[in-house]
This record gives sequence, C-alpha cells and structure tokens, in this order.
Amino acid sequence: MVGIRRVAQHLNLSIGTVSRALNGRPDVNEETRRRVLEAAGALGYAPNQAGRALRRGSTGVVGFMMQTGSEITGDGDTFFMSVFDGVQAVFSRHNLDLVVLLCSSREDPDDYLRRTVARGFADALIISATRREDSRIAYLAERGIPFIALGRSETDAGHPWIDLDFEGLARTGIDRLVAKGHRRIAVSAPADDANLGFVFLDSARTALEGHGLVLPPELVLRSPPNEIGGYQMARQVVAMEERPTAIVLVNETTAIGFYRGLRDAGLEPGRDIAVIGFRESPQAKFLSPPLTCFRIDLHALGEGLAEALLATMPGFQERYPLGTVRRIWPMSLITGESDGIPR
Amino acid sequence: MVGIRRVAQHLNLSIGTVSRALNGRPDVNEETRRRVLEAAGALGYAPNQAGRALRRGSTGVVGFMMQTGSEITGDGDTFFMSVFDGVQAVFSRHNLDLVVLLCSSREDPDDYLRRTVARGFADALIISATRREDSRIAYLAERGIPFIALGRSETDAGHPWIDLDFEGLARTGIDRLVAKGHRRIAVSAPADDANLGFVFLDSARTALEGHGLVLPPELVLRSPPNEIGGYQMARQVVAMEERPTAIVLVNETTAIGFYRGLRDAGLEPGRDIAVIGFRESPQAKFLSPPLTCFRIDLHALGEGLAEALLATMPGFQERYPLGTVRRIWPMSLITGESDGIPR
Repeated sequence: MVGIRRVAQHLNLSIGTVSRALNGRPDVNEETRRRVLEAAGALGYAPNQAGRALRRGSTGVVGFMMQTGSEITGDGDTFFMSVFDGVQAVFSRHNLDLVVLLCSSREDPDDYLRRTVARGFADALIISATRREDSRIAYLAERGIPFIALGRSETDAGHPWIDLDFEGLARTGIDRLVAKGHRRIAVSAPADDANLGFVFLDSARTALEGHGLVLPPELVLRSPPNEIGGYQMARQVVAMEERPTAIVLVNETTAIGFYRGLRDAGLEPGRDIAVIGFRESPQAKFLSPPLTCFRIDLHALGEGLAEALLATMPGFQERYPLGTVRRIWPMSLITGESDGIPR
Repeated sequence: MVGIRRVAQHLNLSIGTVSRALNGRPDVNEETRRRVLEAAGALGYAPNQAGRALRRGSTGVVGFMMQTGSEITGDGDTFFMSVFDGVQAVFSRHNLDLVVLLCSSREDPDDYLRRTVARGFADALIISATRREDSRIAYLAERGIPFIALGRSETDAGHPWIDLDFEGLARTGIDRLVAKGHRRIAVSAPADDANLGFVFLDSARTALEGHGLVLPPELVLRSPPNEIGGYQMARQVVAMEERPTAIVLVNETTAIGFYRGLRDAGLEPGRDIAVIGFRESPQAKFLSPPLTCFRIDLHALGEGLAEALLATMPGFQERYPLGTVRRIWPMSLITGESDGIPR
C-alpha cells in the first residue's frame, strides 16, 4: 500500500504539503495540488484512514467522549462541564480545540467510537465511563490513536488513565461510619458495568472486613445515576425488615433523591439513616442537613487529563515528558451533618 | 475551478463515489480511487473546502457551538446538556451525531467559528449565545452552511432560529410584581452584548410603561451568568439608598447567589426583596423560600432545534417540511414564595 511518504518522495515535496493537497486544504497552490493528485493516482496511493486525521496539526481537534441520555444528563451535567473547562485551559495553549462527543445511552459505546474514528476528525481522544472490560481501549491502542481514559479498566493496553479515588471514598466513608458506631452499612453501586462500581464495592468490602464486618448482598443497592435512582434506593432501604443504619453513595445526584425518599417515608437523613454522599455538587450544596461528601477539583482534573494526553501525542510529548500517566485523583472529605451516630 | 461534479461526469461515476475516493473513505476500491485521483489531477480539480464537508452524508456530524469558561460553566451546566439530549433524540433517527463545540469565553466566537468551518468536520451547525449583531450568522449564510441559531439577533440572514420567550418573562414578571403592589422594580441583564439582554430590557421597560412606571438606569443590574454575579447584584441592591422592593432575574444561576447576598446582609428573599427568577434549574429547586420562576421543556426545545435544522439540510428537508423556523419558545410560570408584597 503506497502511503503519503512515498508520494512526497516521488514529487520531492514535504509530507505536509502532500497531506494538505490530498486533504483539500486551501493553502496549497493549484499546480501543486494537480501534481500531487496525479502522482497519488499513478502510484496507487491509499490513505490510511484511521491514522490520517490522528497526527499533530492534521485536525487540531481532540474529542472527549461522554455518555448522555435522559437518565444521565436529563437534568444537566455539573461534572463534565467543569472538567472540560480544565481540559480547555491546557489545550488553548496549543491551539487545540476540544469537542465533546455525546454518546447516547441508547447506543453501544463501541459502535459509537468506531464511527467516530472512521470520521477521523480528531487528533486524539479522551474516553470516559470506562467499563470493567472496555474494548474501546484495545481498539484505540491497536490503531495507535493517542488517548487517555477517565477511569481505570481491567483492559490494559499500557495506556494512560486518571481515575477518581473510589478506594479512598469507600475506606474513608466506611471507617468514619464504623467509628460512629454503625455496623449495618449499605452502599450504592451503578446499575451498569461501569468499572468504578467494581472498584468501589471491592474497596467497601475490604474496608468492612477490616472492622470484622461484612457487606451482605441485600445492602448493595444498584441504581441509575440520577435523582430518581436515589429515591428508589431510599424506598428500598425503608422497606427492609432489617434496615441499614447508614449508607455510602457513589454517585452525586442520587443523594438528592435519597434525602427525598427518606423524608417521604417519615425518616430524617442524618438522624434515622446516616448518609455519606459522593461529590459536593452544586445541587448537593443545598441539601439540608448538609451532606458529608467529597470535594474534587474538577478543573485541575481536566488539566491533568489534557497534560497526560499531550504526553502521548507525537507533537507535544517533548513538552509534556510525563510518560504514561496512571493516576488516582484525590478527593477530600467535607464533613456535613448527614452522618450522625446510629439511633 | 473544476469541482467534484465535473470529475464525476468525466469518469461516469456518481458524485458520491468520487467524493468518497477524494476523501479517502475505505469503501472505495483501489482501482476507482486511482482513476479518480488521476482524473482530478488532470482536470485541475479544486475542492470547495468550506462546502466540502457540509453536504448530507459527508460527515454525519452536526456541531453545537456553546460558550464555556469558568465564569459560565465552572460549576457545570444544567441547561445545555438537557437541550443536547433532545437534539440527539431527533438526530439518532438519521444516524447523525451531535458533537459539542466548546468555545471558551477567552476566545473570540467569530474566530472560533471560522476555524471550525475550516476544519470542516460538520454537516451543519447550531449556534448559541447569539449577540445583538452576530457576524457568525452572515458568515454561515454566505457559505450556504445549514445552521440554526438558539437565540434571535438583529443580524438577519433569513436563517432559522428558536429563542426563549424573554418578552413573556419580562411581561409576566413585571405584571405580577406590579399587581402585588411593587413600584420600584429592578431587573438583571447580562454583562455582555448577548441579544437576550436587549430583548429582556426592552420588554421590561415596555411592561413597566404599561403601568405608568419607569426603569431608572440604576435599577438595571448587570452581572456575569453565575452565582457570584447574583451575589454581587444583591450587594448592589443592599447598598442602594433607595432600594428596589423587587427584582426580575434573567439568568438561572444568579438567583442562588442573590439569595445568599441578601441573607448575608440580614435581608430575607421574598419578604424584604421580592425575587422572580429565570429558569427552574435543578439548583433552584432547592432554594428556600421556593423561587417563583419559569419552567422550560429543554428536551423539547432540543428536539425543536434539531427538526428546524434538518428542515434546512438538503438531504432531510423533504422529511421536515417546516420552512424557515422562527419560533419563540414558551416558558410557564411556576409560582413560589419568593415574590411577596412589598414590606
């Protein structure tokens, strides 16, 4: 297969000029474009579609793939937009544009990614919502496409990732509740195969075992990542014969519904059931009693993602000599009044 | 200038095949690609860069340009993500992908748009944050790029738009406050030249005049669209020698800061200063006293934008025979307890 390098050698032109001519850029004169097209035809040039748009300067665009859908972003999103802001702060130094690839929850993320790569308009990708086994990782790695994952996975292609500290969340939450006298502690988990669910549950089990406690299956509450999911978990807890006295939530929006679900059943969060929430989101700031939860610097997280991605991109890695970043992002506990002692 | 049509005629191939060959799509056999490239060279083909990626099927991507920045989306965004969800619901019927083009507030939106168009990866565009005079509109119209604006503008290129009912917001808010006995009513406005600010202020003035009242310049409070902006407006109000007894806010996030700003000065929203907010956002739902504000079906708004855009796109307009949509999107009043009678 004759590539762009061979065409450039044949014409004694730079690869960049040939690339611009083949890609129809306006900054190539007509005579050069004519020569390039003729030579490309005569030599049997075949573009490497997947690689074509994935080199420095060829698009100047980096895609951030996130999952959407009325279950996930129906009430907006306060997490990713803050991360994007940090990513952009870094990219703006390099004239790179961030575009957000909205993968609907109705669609298979693998299909979506393949289509995106075929469309070839991004130099590099940031993927999120990583699954336990995530074939997107192998797909991108095999094609040599620079990418970073927000979230770990069992699928390891020697790729960079940054993940939130779900172990720390589980350990800090459980330790704190046990210290206050709780023994029957529930945890939430995503309803799907998001890797964070596995990490969080494993860590919660380990933390409980450290105190001689167990996590019975009925105290693992699965829910969609929204207010209604939180409400349903509260109703499940309320209906239990032997209720937990405390819960640690792994999604920020569920806390809001959980509060409402308890109140609708005449229970008071913090007093009747201790609640430790996930992130101190803009909505969570308005909960009463104030939610004990975790603060994450999302802007800095976005900057970290961007820098770690640039460290993998041929045109930038000498300026970001970070190697393959694999980093657990810290979260700091914000003590509220939602996790009192057991009644 | 020889275009793609001439190359296709010369080879007796379809325009689609020639386009795919020139664009390096993998679904063209090598012999065909060779013939196309040779003919393109021999005939002096010059791609129409701006138009190239803006026909049906050529990219399958529609871009939604929104403004970001720590001032705007630093705490997330609950408006646009809900709109995107509606846009995607329509696009998914047609295998179109929505990508979000994040234009940082540090960047000139006109420059950003020109770069995006040059990158040519979208078939059509949705623009937002329309300004009073918005050169993006003429730019896109001149190039025949299908687009729709979320927001009106004085710049009229015969293009489609959908805008929120800022007149209705002003009129309903003012009428309601006047009926409760308020005579000295402040309004908020964006700090920049967003068109919505002009529409809202004009409408507020007209509504006040209808009651024999005026809007003195000191009661037009300008602020960035965030919590801190709302807080600063409250401090301004508190510091006035002759305070307004009521305010109508034109941004959803400012209500939260406005409440805080009043309370920090020992004033109670609803009792000391009546407040009518903009949208019933997820955060606003947690305000106490409950905020009198407006409900907007953002999912439906997204669907409306998508359908109106498809009505302008060559491959879709027969399925969406809507003509040039120019539509004021309704908002319905949600009565809370934040707009009592004057003290």
